Amino acid sequence: MSDRSEFDAWAREQLAAVEDCLSRWVPADAPAGLGEAMRYGVLDGGKRLRPLLALAAAHAVGASRVAALRAACAVELIHAYSLVHDDMPCMDNDVLRRGKPTVHVQFGEAQAMLAGDAMQALAFEVLTPESDASMPLALQARLCALLARAAGYSGMAGGQAIDLASVGCPLDEQTLRDMHHRKTGALLRVSVLMGAACGDIDERVRDALAVYGDALGLAFQVVDDVLDVTQDSGVLGKTAGKDVDANKPTYVSLMGLDAAMRHARELRDRAHAALAQSGLADTVWLGRLADKVVERDS
Amino acid sequence: MSDRSEFDAWAREQLAAVEDCLSRWVPADAPAGLGEAMRYGVLDGGKRLRPLLALAAAHAVGASRVAALRAACAVELIHAYSLVHDDMPCMDNDVLRRGKPTVHVQFGEAQAMLAGDAMQALAFEVLTPESDASMPLALQARLCALLARAAGYSGMAGGQAIDLASVGCPLDEQTLRDMHHRKTGALLRVSVLMGAACGDIDERVRDALAVYGDALGLAFQVVDDVLDVTQDSGVLGKTAGKDVDANKPTYVSLMGLDAAMRHARELRDRAHAALAQSGLADTVWLGRLADKVVERDS
Repeated sequence: MSDRSEFDAWAREQLAAVEDCLSRWVPADAPAGLGEAMRYGVLDGGKRLRPLLALAAAHAVGASRVAALRAACAVELIHAYSLVHDDMPCMDNDVLRRGKPTVHVQFGEAQAMLAGDAMQALAFEVLTPESDASMPLALQARLCALLARAAGYSGMAGGQAIDLASVGCPLDEQTLRDMHHRKTGALLRVSVLMGAACGDIDERVRDALAVYGDALGLAFQVVDDVLDVTQDSGVLGKTAGKDVDANKPTYVSLMGLDAAMRHARELRDRAHAALAQSGLADTVWLGRLADKVVERDS
Repeated sequence: MSDRSEFDAWAREQLAAVEDCLSRWVPADAPAGLGEAMRYGVLDGGKRLRPLLALAAAHAVGASRVAALRAACAVELIHAYSLVHDDMPCMDNDVLRRGKPTVHVQFGEAQAMLAGDAMQALAFEVLTPESDASMPLALQARLCALLARAAGYSGMAGGQAIDLASVGCPLDEQTLRDMHHRKTGALLRVSVLMGAACGDIDERVRDALAVYGDALGLAFQVVDDVLDVTQDSGVLGKTAGKDVDANKPTYVSLMGLDAAMRHARELRDRAHAALAQSGLADTVWLGRLADKVVERDS
């Protein structure tokens, strides 16, 4: 089997497990259509990069798979809720996501806001099961601590606030980098760290994986900016060209297309170097994920 | 000192401590005005009933005050975020809250949504401090588990979804009770349970406090419905009469004013009976809070 098809087989297996868990944990029977909106917002969609990162990191450190699946789904719930809120008219006003009408288009704005709110709470429910031998209370607390900080004002929400304030404003590369470091970087990085926290790791491993996560997170955003100008909406499954239309600063508008792609490849190399630095024996899936992030076309 | 002034002195001391903690924990320096919107949404306002319940329960079980203050502030952050989102145009479209312009009026809808989102994350950050001897990891996990479930689809967010679906619909008393049990009841009840969880309690105490919390939560809502028709906006610090205007079912519209007040007093008595049942020696502040909830005029 080729390197590529081995990875694809691994990823398919992980995604099936994640989908199965999400389908069991995101309620079908929450009151008054709320469960339906939550499921619409998170099931069956997206590349699931964050869960894959969590599971690849858990694999690299030999962590409990049961715990890692909870970490993976919790991170995906935070990501999915942020998209639901981000798409709303008062934010990006997007009508298309993953090739389907966005949650507020389908269920109304109020229900979309509530579904996002309930998805954030559910992420912390998933991390704190009542009786699960593979999730000791100390691990539950550590995972909640990591996720809350990545999702909150110093992470994702903070990055979104900078993004919001930046529309039509000239932003230098440093501020753009800070915005993305929080907005998408924090959650990608914490996916790796939460997966790793499910195992027994020392500080050296943790620090190396943090460098890996940072490099991958930034590479992801640079490539996103590239795809926003080089692909059309059909391929992306979301509205293309919207950053340019909104006069938002991007890596492409700052660096140009070629330099942005070069920068993404440098970041991929930095991610690989961090994996080598970690001293972990089996980082093959983490390595392939770094490649995927840079090579993807949607 | 009279019973009443003793309680007032106790409550003043608790509120000062809560305000001090919130002011330290809700960031002034979050990016792009986000911190400012968060602080506007939670500092300096409201009756702080939930923190007082958490601290009174912690007092009753002899719990660590440091831990109880974190529980108290976390619950208040969830309550405050829910008000910020609830007031937005796509929900209740309220422009006045606690006598001030609502967060979206002051900072815009997008920032209000982000501030609410970040406040929910912050609640879980507050519950998971990195190094705090009075917050062992097992306690952190238990508090996160309680709060997430009270805030999420089976609790507050679920109740809001029922509320949303009920506008202009005939709702029977059972459904109305279920809606309030989730929408406001879950968070009031969990305030008591989280305060108690900061101490070392057995199942009997836990169950008695859960009954107390349920009765108090329901009484709170019944009195809210009464005040909505008997008080004006100036006294309430929010728009009065809006449930009637929105043709929303309330306890008053279902039972009539007198029966609703009688029902509230019965619930207060049930709360007191549960405290007696708990076997706890010092439930004086919990008892006074049940009285306050029923006697309040705003």
